[in-house]
Amino acid sequence: MMNLKNIAIIYLFGVLAFSCKQQNKAESSKEEGELIFARGEMINNENFTGTAWLNNLVQADSVNQIAAGSVTFEPGARTKWHLHPAGQIILALEGVGYYQEKGKGKVIIKKGEVVKCPADIPHWHGASADTAFIQIAITGREKGETVWLERVTDDEYNSIK
Amino acid sequence: MMNLKNIAIIYLFGVLAFSCKQQNKAESSKEEGELIFARGEMINNENFTGTAWLNNLVQADSVNQIAAGSVTFEPGARTKWHLHPAGQIILALEGVGYYQEKGKGKVIIKKGEVVKCPADIPHWHGASADTAFIQIAITGREKGETVWLERVTDDEYNSIK
Repeated sequence: MMNLKNIAIIYLFGVLAFSCKQQNKAESSKEEGELIFARGEMINNENFTGTAWLNNLVQADSVNQIAAGSVTFEPGARTKWHLHPAGQIILALEGVGYYQEKGKGKVIIKKGEVVKCPADIPHWHGASADTAFIQIAITGREKGETVWLERVTDDEYNSIK
Repeated sequence: MMNLKNIAIIYLFGVLAFSCKQQNKAESSKEEGELIFARGEMINNENFTGTAWLNNLVQADSVNQIAAGSVTFEPGARTKWHLHPAGQIILALEGVGYYQEKGKGKVIIKKGEVVKCPADIPHWHGASADTAFIQIAITGREKGETVWLERVTDDEYNSIK
């Protein structure tokens, strides 16, 4: 009788602990799945290194010359060096990324931070080496399209300067 | 001896259950507090009705003619009717809002949705009646500043057309 009671107690402890763990796990999964904007299509062109995704939220057109897109970079993924004739604004929505302008040091960008990239300045951006990065890129198209330049080398990507 | 053991078991059950509850509560609070962009300053001007907050993320200047700001509307809060000489893009980050262009029906905007407001078209936006709304507003300034018009009446705000 006593053994049966002990077994029942141990069983209940187990159920309670497991239930608690499952509940937390479900909440974590929900957070991960609750992206504000869908990550869109995987980018398959030579202007990006590594795995990145693009959701074109707004196309520039005759109504409005501004384009806005959500870009998701897996860890290590980045753009080539490039420039925008009318500049670009980057809003960091999630994770940790890198940003660098030609001739300057690499900057770490975190969720909630904003970068204003001047017109015609070569730069690159992407995820940090170990954390994915989601950004909204806002680009004026009134002065022309993005100009793509050379690849970001691993040395440039990994520099700690 | 047996009583002591039972008391200990009941106590341990209580600790485990309480710990589980606290953990979930902490995660929920963290979610609520984890805004991507700080809500900024409360808006104290006659162009808004109700309680709204503005975080000017990017100012338009000679480097870049695009302004971007995060606006948080408490339920019921909204702008006056207004127009933008170069149009506006609204990215819905959180909650449920309303958007209406002059002469058209009121549209419900939800987290993850995007509105492209044409140049010179009078419109208003704000939170829905019972849910707060957070938006990023992206506004080209190259053709001039926002023109503010009349207040949105309660009839307009509550219309279900």
